[in-house]
Amino acid sequence: MKDLLQIDGARLWASLMEMAQIGATAGGGVRRLALTEEDRRGRELFARWCREAGMSVVTDEVGNLFARREGANSHAAPVLMGSHLDTQPEGGRFDGVYGVLAALEVVRALNDAQAVTEKPIEICSWTNEEGARFTPAMLGSAVFAGAMPLADALAREDAEGVTLGAALDACGARGTRPVTGVAVDAYFEAHIEQGPILEANGTAIGVVTGGQAIRWFDVTVTGVAAHAGTTPMRYRKDAFFGAAQMALEIERVIARYAPLGLVTIGQVQVANSSRNTIAANLTFTVDIRHPDDAQLDAMERDVRAACERAAASRGLGVAIAPCWTSPATPFDAQCVDLVAQAVTALGYSNERIVSGAGHDAIHLARYCPTAMVFIPCVDGLSHNEAEDALPEDVTAGTNVLLNAVAARAGVRIAAAA
Amino acid sequence: MKDLLQIDGARLWASLMEMAQIGATAGGGVRRLALTEEDRRGRELFARWCREAGMSVVTDEVGNLFARREGANSHAAPVLMGSHLDTQPEGGRFDGVYGVLAALEVVRALNDAQAVTEKPIEICSWTNEEGARFTPAMLGSAVFAGAMPLADALAREDAEGVTLGAALDACGARGTRPVTGVAVDAYFEAHIEQGPILEANGTAIGVVTGGQAIRWFDVTVTGVAAHAGTTPMRYRKDAFFGAAQMALEIERVIARYAPLGLVTIGQVQVANSSRNTIAANLTFTVDIRHPDDAQLDAMERDVRAACERAAASRGLGVAIAPCWTSPATPFDAQCVDLVAQAVTALGYSNERIVSGAGHDAIHLARYCPTAMVFIPCVDGLSHNEAEDALPEDVTAGTNVLLNAVAARAGVRIAAAA
Repeated sequence: MKDLLQIDGARLWASLMEMAQIGATAGGGVRRLALTEEDRRGRELFARWCREAGMSVVTDEVGNLFARREGANSHAAPVLMGSHLDTQPEGGRFDGVYGVLAALEVVRALNDAQAVTEKPIEICSWTNEEGARFTPAMLGSAVFAGAMPLADALAREDAEGVTLGAALDACGARGTRPVTGVAVDAYFEAHIEQGPILEANGTAIGVVTGGQAIRWFDVTVTGVAAHAGTTPMRYRKDAFFGAAQMALEIERVIARYAPLGLVTIGQVQVANSSRNTIAANLTFTVDIRHPDDAQLDAMERDVRAACERAAASRGLGVAIAPCWTSPATPFDAQCVDLVAQAVTALGYSNERIVSGAGHDAIHLARYCPTAMVFIPCVDGLSHNEAEDALPEDVTAGTNVLLNAVAARAGVRIAAAA
Repeated sequence: MKDLLQIDGARLWASLMEMAQIGATAGGGVRRLALTEEDRRGRELFARWCREAGMSVVTDEVGNLFARREGANSHAAPVLMGSHLDTQPEGGRFDGVYGVLAALEVVRALNDAQAVTEKPIEICSWTNEEGARFTPAMLGSAVFAGAMPLADALAREDAEGVTLGAALDACGARGTRPVTGVAVDAYFEAHIEQGPILEANGTAIGVVTGGQAIRWFDVTVTGVAAHAGTTPMRYRKDAFFGAAQMALEIERVIARYAPLGLVTIGQVQVANSSRNTIAANLTFTVDIRHPDDAQLDAMERDVRAACERAAASRGLGVAIAPCWTSPATPFDAQCVDLVAQAVTALGYSNERIVSGAGHDAIHLARYCPTAMVFIPCVDGLSHNEAEDALPEDVTAGTNVLLNAVAARAGVRIAAAA
């Protein structure tokens, strides 16, 4: 077990629980919406802790907060770790904040070990990851990675019409460092899985290989409105039963892509609906996901064919409108290997996993070499006040982050006394 | 063809078209909501025509308008014909008004033939049949038949909070004749079918045997909300796919009751729906109908079993809540026979048919011997500005009404000159 660094799990847990007091809800969760007074207090606490760990702190033009631990080669691009401090309206104590405070604990552990790294190490807390106050989600990392112009981001408005720019000023979070063009050697993010896979498999660590591809569609089924009492079944063109047939057909064809292919029909609406009128115009949403773009292409073809087949069999109209798409995002093979090597060296149970949710790391992966570390969350719950994680998993994920980052940054441990 | 009376089709058509000017819409339909200024003008025109036909006119406490042609035996209970003059917000030129003006044409034809009937003949235009301004539909006939207390009816409010009582006063339509306890020998109502059956079969006359039984349910399907991106298909409890399976199962089991059994799922709602969240709570409506109560009982059992089977197969919860029920309403065999005999004598193509929609005759059937005459409507359309009927069908239905009513009332034709 040569050179294996270890974090202080109790210290990290205490920091997580202290941060969870800011915006704590009666239900045991956290409400710390982006750029609110709670977020301001959270940022302040985090910045203080970073300074206490000997780091310098700067904020960029979109409020992304960076803390830097100098490297032996101060001109080298830094190895970046991070996630976000903002939460959902009824969020939990781990989503985002775990990745930020795990990164802080990595620096604290390096300090304890009197370790020197060749490259500088930085921590970033990204602005407005949740998308709960300002859309889109992952806004700060999008601007940083060049996926969204700064001016567009600053002009985004919350539900009360407050722009992100005004919210940054009100929160004292608008910095002067240019948000784009920043050199980064690599980016590592630790996060709770936000799904049930690791827990169900009894796995401590998910070695994340990338983000899956996503496509959204609106499917509109057109029949003929008619009186529920006077129209014989054989004369009907009922959009509801047509949509039901489409849904079951979609479910059946997507099952061929198990276990990675996913399909969700989350919303449905009958226009001008009435209990005793045959549905003439029904729209439902389709969300399909797969880690592989080519497989997602095939899934889309199968979904379209399923809808058209069902419509044709009933004399209904169908229109399938694409709404949004996001390609698959494979992570950097070398960075993923560093995570895998750290897990192996530390002896944790592990499996390769694809990120089902969006993360800042998805934007970073298109900007610099990137990897993620997942830990299980209890019952797979997230975006929920009951969100929870076990202390041993929290510690394990942070040890993995520490050793992967240390390896990437080129660590030298001071000789033991 | 002894004693066959004939109406004047051109005169009836002209009256229909004149009445359709009151509330005429740009789209070729009629908007004559109950107890509005348009309804007042419609009532006034109808009452004038009745007086011109030698009838006396009275209004009861709920605004039902009665016109009376005296019989040889003025103490006998009258044979009543009628329907309603109010329309849907975007209604047509035939729904309701056809039955009222066909009845008027029957009286005009009896006058032309100098016919004397043993029993008096009355025409009624029932208040607020459509239910478009005040709920429920068929309000005036409900009070008349004892299905709804007068005080309840008068207290009903429209969308602006105007009570039916106030609307009756404003319209000058509140009469003093007691609405209940009126003796009626029999009730006949002519109406457009409001469905496609007669037209599809090329049949001129529907001999209506009764109203079908109806039951309404709300089916609530309960799954587990989860993230569309992080939850493998095998862990999901998706209420949407469960509901789709229920719908197709319901459709399949109800097909056993063809052609009379009907099922409609007109409304569906996912609670707290989001495009990328698995549906956890979905409610859909079920409307089932059959002319036979026992068959409807069996249909309900099959629907419940279908829902429970689908839920069990997916580990979902399901609750089936009854909302409303209306039993089957068979019409009076003798009155139906009088209609059938008139059709046969007149030589019209015909078939027995069950009324799919609600009509004032459904309330009357529980109060006195009742029958209805249906004529085809173009494309089965109703509650629509494009609602239409062919002049020959309009004439045929009225000839049937004339001869059935004359037979019931005991007609004596004056010797031809």
